[in-house]
Amino acid sequence: MSTILLLSCPDQHGLVASISNFVSDNNGNIISLNEHVDLDEKMFFIRIEWENNDLSISNNDIITRFKPLAEKFDAKWRIEFTEHKPKLAIFVSKYDHVLQEILWRSKLGEYNTQIACIISNHIELEILANSYNIPFYFFPITNDNKLHQEEAEIELLKKHEIDIIVLARYMQILSPEFVSQFPNIIINIHHSFLPAFMGGNPYKQAFVRGVKMIGATSHFVTNSLDEGPIIAQDIIRITHKDSVKDLVRKGRDLERLVLAKALHLHLEHRVLVHKGKTIVFE
Amino acid sequence: MSTILLLSCPDQHGLVASISNFVSDNNGNIISLNEHVDLDEKMFFIRIEWENNDLSISNNDIITRFKPLAEKFDAKWRIEFTEHKPKLAIFVSKYDHVLQEILWRSKLGEYNTQIACIISNHIELEILANSYNIPFYFFPITNDNKLHQEEAEIELLKKHEIDIIVLARYMQILSPEFVSQFPNIIINIHHSFLPAFMGGNPYKQAFVRGVKMIGATSHFVTNSLDEGPIIAQDIIRITHKDSVKDLVRKGRDLERLVLAKALHLHLEHRVLVHKGKTIVFE
Amino acid sequence: MSTILLLSCPDQHGLVASISNFVSDNNGNIISLNEHVDLDEKMFFIRIEWENNDLSISNNDIITRFKPLAEKFDAKWRIEFTEHKPKLAIFVSKYDHVLQEILWRSKLGEYNTQIACIISNHIELEILANSYNIPFYFFPITNDNKLHQEEAEIELLKKHEIDIIVLARYMQILSPEFVSQFPNIIINIHHSFLPAFMGGNPYKQAFVRGVKMIGATSHFVTNSLDEGPIIAQDIIRITHKDSVKDLVRKGRDLERLVLAKALHLHLEHRVLVHKGKTIVFE
Amino acid sequence: MSTILLLSCPDQHGLVASISNFVSDNNGNIISLNEHVDLDEKMFFIRIEWENNDLSISNNDIITRFKPLAEKFDAKWRIEFTEHKPKLAIFVSKYDHVLQEILWRSKLGEYNTQIACIISNHIELEILANSYNIPFYFFPITNDNKLHQEEAEIELLKKHEIDIIVLARYMQILSPEFVSQFPNIIINIHHSFLPAFMGGNPYKQAFVRGVKMIGATSHFVTNSLDEGPIIAQDIIRITHKDSVKDLVRKGRDLERLVLAKALHLHLEHRVLVHKGKTIVFE
Repeated sequence: MSTILLLSCPDQHGLVASISNFVSDNNGNIISLNEHVDLDEKMFFIRIEWENNDLSISNNDIITRFKPLAEKFDAKWRIEFTEHKPKLAIFVSKYDHVLQEILWRSKLGEYNTQIACIISNHIELEILANSYNIPFYFFPITNDNKLHQEEAEIELLKKHEIDIIVLARYMQILSPEFVSQFPNIIINIHHSFLPAFMGGNPYKQAFVRGVKMIGATSHFVTNSLDEGPIIAQDIIRITHKDSVKDLVRKGRDLERLVLAKALHLHLEHRVLVHKGKTIVFE
Repeated sequence: MSTILLLSCPDQHGLVASISNFVSDNNGNIISLNEHVDLDEKMFFIRIEWENNDLSISNNDIITRFKPLAEKFDAKWRIEFTEHKPKLAIFVSKYDHVLQEILWRSKLGEYNTQIACIISNHIELEILANSYNIPFYFFPITNDNKLHQEEAEIELLKKHEIDIIVLARYMQILSPEFVSQFPNIIINIHHSFLPAFMGGNPYKQAFVRGVKMIGATSHFVTNSLDEGPIIAQDIIRITHKDSVKDLVRKGRDLERLVLAKALHLHLEHRVLVHKGKTIVFE
Repeated sequence: MSTILLLSCPDQHGLVASISNFVSDNNGNIISLNEHVDLDEKMFFIRIEWENNDLSISNNDIITRFKPLAEKFDAKWRIEFTEHKPKLAIFVSKYDHVLQEILWRSKLGEYNTQIACIISNHIELEILANSYNIPFYFFPITNDNKLHQEEAEIELLKKHEIDIIVLARYMQILSPEFVSQFPNIIINIHHSFLPAFMGGNPYKQAFVRGVKMIGATSHFVTNSLDEGPIIAQDIIRITHKDSVKDLVRKGRDLERLVLAKALHLHLEHRVLVHKGKTIVFE
Repeated sequence: MSTILLLSCPDQHGLVASISNFVSDNNGNIISLNEHVDLDEKMFFIRIEWENNDLSISNNDIITRFKPLAEKFDAKWRIEFTEHKPKLAIFVSKYDHVLQEILWRSKLGEYNTQIACIISNHIELEILANSYNIPFYFFPITNDNKLHQEEAEIELLKKHEIDIIVLARYMQILSPEFVSQFPNIIINIHHSFLPAFMGGNPYKQAFVRGVKMIGATSHFVTNSLDEGPIIAQDIIRITHKDSVKDLVRKGRDLERLVLAKALHLHLEHRVLVHKGKTIVFE
């Protein structure tokens, strides 16, 4: 079990010293430290993970003790404890591949998470949810009921105390009201190397353009469609022999792996967001 | 020495048989054959390369004899002879890396080409051209003299009987008049994974968007800027640590290799253009 | 539904013409043709796929009619019909990831195959087999009963008329007697970029050596351990931060995808074996 | 101008705090910090780079002041100053591509280095050395004169106060006597994904084995041939169509880029060696 601090603040003298002294003074042993200074923006970013040697210090104590330091630095920060398993909600429609991948990895123990529920606007994937004993909630969406259904979803997510929302090829655009409730915790997978081929049917767009590679991009959802901070991207090569159907088939592998990676990074608290971009401390 | 036929036509019964019989009847031995059928468009594409066992048949004979067959198929086609070294003109501005790469590969014997001339709107790379003993022509471009200079360039290119034009990070947009003179023989390198980041400063655009990979795209030049048929693309990974300057440095390697590959494919007559896309017979 | 000819023979004049004439004369329409000439070995390889326009010609007729041509060429050859679904047997031990991948892809319709049975020396994956309604056979292996159990397995495989055997992380070495019964139809996945790290514990070996990438290799099984003809390989990057456990986790993704690709190629009859190497007509 | 500390020592409480306090107390501002803890070996590794705000502290002062701390930690360490350009010697034979790449990158300003001399057992590349105005020394090697020539080379390298030796496809095996003089500062490029295809003719070996990718590996030279600590590796895909000559051509690009990257990492003081492996702080 370890403790992770993620922090960003204006760069200033002695930041690493202050923070590492804090860890040391609280009897922690640093096992991982990543730091980034943006020299143009004069911003400082850090992820620091330590083991607690002194078990008499509670998690609440750590947070209370760190607060004055963070305020001094004028920092945005959060402290995470790996003993806490973040709660995950997965939104799906009809495609199963990304969901399969997350469920399978979770079962294998790759993810420090608890999959609290699966939410869908279609009924097809209920069987898969059941086979993993995960609650499945069916919220059919029409133009008329969309906002109403989203309100019900939000209530459900709050009830489950959800920490992370994954859109695993969820084929609905979430409303600004919904998105604004969950800043930087909704992770989407888009099936193109963004910013190429934003919007619908990216494989068809890629085919028509005649690109020689297709991609997938996992990003945090904001209210600018497909323009949220990018967490992970990857590509594979294609040729003139590939039809749109082939792109869909080949792209599935990318979508699964890229989202799986983004989720892994997020669950290990390795992703900071700053001005529409991510700092990923791999 | 071998002969290469590149052909596209509406798909129909017996095409491969007819073409391979033609080769066989003319005493050729096929050493390479690539074929593609677009089942949606009902189009047939082929690249076939053969060695001539009967040296009494001249290159002109081959073309004359093939013509009736091609007409029967309603085909677009060309026949190339590897004993002919295509003549290359390279357009550059101030950056030397893509030019260096082509000159070095050419000297090593990787390319079946003769570099006939280097044309630039700046004087800086004359020294490099001289060191390889290649004629260098300086055509400074202003808003006022652009069309006039392009006319002089066209005249020069015709005089040199240029077969291929490479834009090796040439920082000028060619006029529609110029481009229309050289359809599907002007190869450009754009420093992004097109269609992402078209236009100017793609590395800056990539930095601002926060993508996790940058790319390069080599394509034939048409009068739609950065929208010509794509020949080759590649990407490399970047992180939040990379400044725009780092992207420029890392991107140079991509630009060199992607253009080098596209030129290699074109010089081996492996690229067919159909409806704004390429068939690349690798 | 289409017909596929895979053929290799000494290179000679008029091969493509003869074969394409055969297709044309039998009223076929070629939809894909790949050809390779090894100029050093003077060997000719071809994969040609055609649709039958004349349904009065039976599959047996095609084979009977082609035989004299093949004999004339002194060829090794086979003709496959895509209407026939090859029967697959999958051997597993305790790891489920490669099996999961094949089952999932098969269910999605990516593979033209019928998974006839799953054979294991452990009982753990019976549940997974059952969930896909595929017969599961348990053959525990000890040093004493190995040959005896293999005989029973061979009998079972013959009874099921198995066309392809996949070793999906099967943790037993098959005896020479077993392997010799199934030449070039047993596909294995080895978790290294062969020939590096042959034998046991390749991830541990990779960790100890300090390589900067790990790989996976899918190959046909021969009686030289890890030395059979390679069908597909891929790698991912690792760093000093990765423990052996991380390599195992990251490698799983490679193993799944590389075996899945090799199986896809084999099921589309795109792989020819010649002198311990493969020709893969992608 | 900045200062870089590279340090490894047994892991212990308060290391980052002590080191960052040292930087802070000496009026430095940390601009980059990478840290790695090997939990199995209980070893700590760090690279920390800072700018000096107080110019009254000399480089010698920094080293003198840090020494007691390093001794307390029982550390292996070095402090580098980016104002110092390390001196490079490049060993070549007849192939020019890796040398070209280094010279070109150096000229572009990618490397913080001074290329002090080029040493060769052949005369062919003298022209290239001259064109960059770099001293070229010709040491022809025979079985009889090898040790004697190496002694002369060592003397020359000492005279030039060489910091780094690059073997840019130098086709001689250095004697143990030579190697032992320059531990962890001789960088070689081997044209395979080590440990596959050690020794001579790796492209031929790769061709014979029928692998589907070839690689290149840059490593520090030790007295176990091709077994030194690996700094960087990369691969490209090949197919059955590639002859040994094609592998040589395609491999050249890998060799150039992989060595260029390894040299870049080393010149930025990002590489630590521990027990035959590298920690690369990218």
